[in-house]
Amino acid sequence: MSTETLKVIPLGGLGEIGKNMMALEYGGHILVIDCGLMFPQEEMLGVDLVIPDITYLRDNRERVLGILITHGHEDHTGALPYVLPELKVPVYAPPLARGLISLKLKEHNLLRSATLESVRPGDELALGPFQVGFFQVSHSIPDATGLVIDTPLGTVVHSGDFKLDHTPVDGKTTDLGLLAQLGRRGVLLLLSDSTYAEVPGYTPSEKTVGETMDRIMAEAEGRVIVATFASHISRVQQVMDAAGKHGRRVYVVGRSMIENVNMALELGYLEAPPGLIAKVDELRSSPLNRIAVITTGTQGEPTSVLVRMAHGDHRLLKVIPGDTVVVSASPIPGNEQVVNRTINNLFKEGAQVLYGRVANVHVHGHGSQEELKMLLSLVKPRYMVPVHGEYRHLMLHAQLAKTLGISPDHTFVLENGDVLEIGEGEAAVTGRVNSDYVYVDGLGDVGNIVLRDRKHLSRDGILVAIIVVDKRTGHIVGRPDLVSRGFADIDEAQGLLDEARDLIAKGLDQGGKHYAEWSFVNTKVKNDLGQFLYERTKRRPMILPIVMEV
Amino acid sequence: MSTETLKVIPLGGLGEIGKNMMALEYGGHILVIDCGLMFPQEEMLGVDLVIPDITYLRDNRERVLGILITHGHEDHTGALPYVLPELKVPVYAPPLARGLISLKLKEHNLLRSATLESVRPGDELALGPFQVGFFQVSHSIPDATGLVIDTPLGTVVHSGDFKLDHTPVDGKTTDLGLLAQLGRRGVLLLLSDSTYAEVPGYTPSEKTVGETMDRIMAEAEGRVIVATFASHISRVQQVMDAAGKHGRRVYVVGRSMIENVNMALELGYLEAPPGLIAKVDELRSSPLNRIAVITTGTQGEPTSVLVRMAHGDHRLLKVIPGDTVVVSASPIPGNEQVVNRTINNLFKEGAQVLYGRVANVHVHGHGSQEELKMLLSLVKPRYMVPVHGEYRHLMLHAQLAKTLGISPDHTFVLENGDVLEIGEGEAAVTGRVNSDYVYVDGLGDVGNIVLRDRKHLSRDGILVAIIVVDKRTGHIVGRPDLVSRGFADIDEAQGLLDEARDLIAKGLDQGGKHYAEWSFVNTKVKNDLGQFLYERTKRRPMILPIVMEV
Repeated sequence: MSTETLKVIPLGGLGEIGKNMMALEYGGHILVIDCGLMFPQEEMLGVDLVIPDITYLRDNRERVLGILITHGHEDHTGALPYVLPELKVPVYAPPLARGLISLKLKEHNLLRSATLESVRPGDELALGPFQVGFFQVSHSIPDATGLVIDTPLGTVVHSGDFKLDHTPVDGKTTDLGLLAQLGRRGVLLLLSDSTYAEVPGYTPSEKTVGETMDRIMAEAEGRVIVATFASHISRVQQVMDAAGKHGRRVYVVGRSMIENVNMALELGYLEAPPGLIAKVDELRSSPLNRIAVITTGTQGEPTSVLVRMAHGDHRLLKVIPGDTVVVSASPIPGNEQVVNRTINNLFKEGAQVLYGRVANVHVHGHGSQEELKMLLSLVKPRYMVPVHGEYRHLMLHAQLAKTLGISPDHTFVLENGDVLEIGEGEAAVTGRVNSDYVYVDGLGDVGNIVLRDRKHLSRDGILVAIIVVDKRTGHIVGRPDLVSRGFADIDEAQGLLDEARDLIAKGLDQGGKHYAEWSFVNTKVKNDLGQFLYERTKRRPMILPIVMEV
Repeated sequence: MSTETLKVIPLGGLGEIGKNMMALEYGGHILVIDCGLMFPQEEMLGVDLVIPDITYLRDNRERVLGILITHGHEDHTGALPYVLPELKVPVYAPPLARGLISLKLKEHNLLRSATLESVRPGDELALGPFQVGFFQVSHSIPDATGLVIDTPLGTVVHSGDFKLDHTPVDGKTTDLGLLAQLGRRGVLLLLSDSTYAEVPGYTPSEKTVGETMDRIMAEAEGRVIVATFASHISRVQQVMDAAGKHGRRVYVVGRSMIENVNMALELGYLEAPPGLIAKVDELRSSPLNRIAVITTGTQGEPTSVLVRMAHGDHRLLKVIPGDTVVVSASPIPGNEQVVNRTINNLFKEGAQVLYGRVANVHVHGHGSQEELKMLLSLVKPRYMVPVHGEYRHLMLHAQLAKTLGISPDHTFVLENGDVLEIGEGEAAVTGRVNSDYVYVDGLGDVGNIVLRDRKHLSRDGILVAIIVVDKRTGHIVGRPDLVSRGFADIDEAQGLLDEARDLIAKGLDQGGKHYAEWSFVNTKVKNDLGQFLYERTKRRPMILPIVMEV
C-alpha cells in the first residue's frame, strides 16, 4: 500500500480465551492494548500460565509508546509482570485496574520501576500519532472501559470486554450515547468482544443475581456461604446488600477475597455500612442464620476455601447441617470436571448447594448476540475485527456482522500474529509476526519439548534402564537394571521386567560392538525395549537408558 | 432385620456418570442389572477405561443368577468382556443391545463361551425368587427398556435410561400405561435415572432435531456432514430421512458408524429406501449438494473421521468450501475442550459448523425434572433410590421426590458399595461391600500408585540422579549425574543442574557414612535435591535416585 497505513497486530486473545494483547501501529509508533495471560488448557501439563509472545514488541522496543489496559481482569493485565521488564513503557489503566496491577507488580518486585497512570472515562491521552479516549462499559468488574483511538486514517473503537446492562449494580452502563455519536461521525475500525457470540438474545442484568441472593439470604435457615471471583466487586456488593438486609453479618474468608474487598472498600468501589463486615473469630459464636460468608473457589482451585470445605479440611469452615453454599460463577472452559467434583463433595458433606445450572446465581459479563449487533449498529464501522474468543466465536461474530450489512470483505477474522494493514480505501492481511505460545511455570518459560515429555510421561510413565559398560572391553557388565515409575504395578509387572532385562542384555551381547558408543546403546535399548513392552502391554512408556562406564 | 430382606447393592454408576451396575439380592440369590464401563476422567492419566469392582459378585459367584441389560449403551454393557469371564452367567438383553454386545464379545474372543438371551418388552423371566419383566422406554438408542422385578417383598421398578418422548422417531414411547398400572397396584422400590435431574422442564422430543436436519439438508449449498454417536440409530434415521427428502444420497464413513448402521439395517431398526445409501467411491463424482455424510467424532476422538477432517488429514474427506458440518451431540463432561478445539479447527478449515450451542441439532436422551416427577407420580413407590448420575444429580433427584411427598426417610442416596436392606415395613443401609475403581489400560488393571506417579510426572517431570558408590569404601565416586525429562529446557537449566550435582556430592560427602546404605542415600538425595529445586524453581519434579555400586 502506497501511503502510510494503520497496522493491527493481535499478539494474543484471538482463537483462544484469555491472553488478550494487540498492537496498533502507525507511522512507526506502536500502541499496545491490554497485556493478559491465559490459564493453561489441560493438555499443557504442569504449565502455570501462558503469556503472549512479545518478540515483535521486543524487537521494536524503542517504538512502543505505552500499554493501554481496558480493565483489571487477569486475562487483560496478567502478563504485565513478564512484559514490563522487557519493554519499560508506561501503562495507562482505569483506577481499579491500576490498583490490582500494583498489587501484582509488588509481588514481583516490579512496582518501583513501573510507570502506572490512572485514566478515567472522558480522559484524553496524546500518544504519538494516536489520540486515545476511554469510555465506560459494563462488565463483571467495575471500572471497565472501551477505547476510542483517533488515528490520522480514522477512528478505531475497541469494545474492551462489555455487556449492555441497563441496570448494573454500580449504575455505570456502557456509554451508548458516545458510541452512537462516533458512529454518526464515522468509525474506521471496530474491535469487538466475541466471547459470547454463540449465545442468542441478551445477557441478563447483574441485578437479577441480586434478586436471587436476596431470596437465598431470606430463606436459608442456616449459614449462607457464597463463592465468587475475588475481582467481581459488583457480585460481592450484591451479596453484602442481601446479607445486610436480612440481618446477616458478612465474613470475608480467603486471602485474595480479603485483598480485593479491602482495596475496593478503600477505593470506594464497594460500600459496606459500619458493622456489616465481621471478624472471622466471631464466626463460631454467631447464630447460624446471622452469618453470610464470602469467599473464592468457584473454579475448583485446590487450595481455595471452597475446595477445602468440600473436603472437610478447612480449619475454620466446615460444612454443618443447614449450610447453603452458593457457587456464584460458571466454570471457565476446562474446569468443568473439577468444579462438578467440588459441588458433589459439598453435597456429600451435607450442604445444600446452589449453582448456575439449578439457580440464577450467576450471569455473564459479556454481551450476547443481540448486544453485539447493537454495538455494530451504533458504531457502523467501515472495518470490523472480532476479538476475544476462540476461533468459532470470532467466526460467528463475523457472520453476525454480515447479517447487519457489513461486507465480508471488510470483516477480518485474524489469528494471533497476523498483520492487518489498513490504508486509504483498502485493507488486507499483509504479513505475520511471531506469535508462539509462551508457557510459564515456576522456573520461567517451558519449552515444547518439556511439554511433550510431560505428556508422554503422564500417559504411560517412564522406565529407566541402567546399563553398566566396562570401560576397557566395551562390553556390558551384568544384567541391566530397570526402574519404572507410573508404568505398572511393580509386583504385577515383575515377571515382565525380568524378561525385559534379559532381552536388553541379549540384544547388547550380540553386536560385539564397543558399547561405550552411547548413541548406539541408547537407540538399541529404546527400540528393543519399546517394541517388547508394546507387544506385551500395548503401552509405550518413556524409555530412558543410562549408560555407566566403570 | 428379622425376616428375609431384599438387598440393593449399587456396584457402579452412583455418584459418577457411567459404569452402571447394581445387584439385587433376595433369599441368597443375586440378580445383576447392567454392566457398564466409564470413560476415564482427565485426572486418570493414561487409563483407558474404568469398570465396576465386582469383588462381591466374584466372592458370591455361585449365587449370581444372571445379568439383565436395559439397553445397548456402553455405560450399561461395556464391562461385560471383563466381567463375564469371571462370572460365567447368562446375559438377558433386548435384541439391539444383544447385537452390540455380540460384536464386543467377539472382539474379545468371548462370544462362544457367553450365554446371551434376547428379551423384549412383555417377556417374563423367572429367575430364582425374581419375576422379571421388561418395559419399553424412549432413550437415545432403540430397544431401550426399564425393568419390573417382582420379589416376595414387593415390586421393584428400574427406569433404565429414559425420557418421556411422546413423538420418538421409532414410535416407541415410554410405557406410561404399564407404569400407572404398577403404581396403582403398589410398588415397593423405584430405581430411577437421575442424569438430568439438574435440568428444569421437559427434554425436547427427538423429532425437533429432525426438523433442524430437514432445514439444513434443504438449505445447505454444498455437502452436509453429520457426526453423531454410532449407536444413536434414531438420529441416523432422521439424517437419512432428511437427506433423502432433499435429494441427497447418504455416505456412511468410519468403522464404528458402518458397523452400527449395518447391524441396525439387518435387525430392522433402521430403514433406508434402495439407493439412498451410496458407496464412498462415488463421493468424488457426485454433485456437492447431493451429498450427505454420516460419521462419528462428536467427542473429539483423535482417530475419528471428524477430528481427522478438522486437521485436514483424512484421506477421503477434506473440508471444501460450502461444506456444512453438523456436530449432533453434546460433549460428555470432560470432553468440552477437545470438542471445542475440533469445532474451531473445522471453522479454520473453512466449514460452516453447526453444533448444540448455536443450532437445535441435538437433544438429550434423559428425562428432565418434569419427566422425573411424572415417573414418580405414576409409580408412587414406597422407597426410592436415585440412580445414574453424579452425586449432585442424585441429591437433586431425592429433593424432587421430597416435593412430591415421598418421605426423605424413604429416599436413599446411596454410594457405590452401600448395602440397602429392605424388610417388611423398614429399610436401612446396613453395610458395605468393596467398590473401588477398577482402572483398565492396555496392560490390565492400573493401581493407584501408578496413577499418582503419572500425575506427579505430568506436572513437573522427573530428575534421575545417578550416584556411584565405591563398594569397598562406601564413599561416592565422582560427581553424581543428573538426567531430566519433562522438567525444564536442558540448555536453560544447565547451570542449575550443575549446582545441584555439587549439592548432592557435598551432602553425601559430609556424613562419613557408608553410602551403600541405599535407603539413606535415597532419602538424603530426595530431600536435598527436592528442597534446592523447589527454592530455585518452585517446582517439585519426581526425583529418582539410582545408586550403583562399583
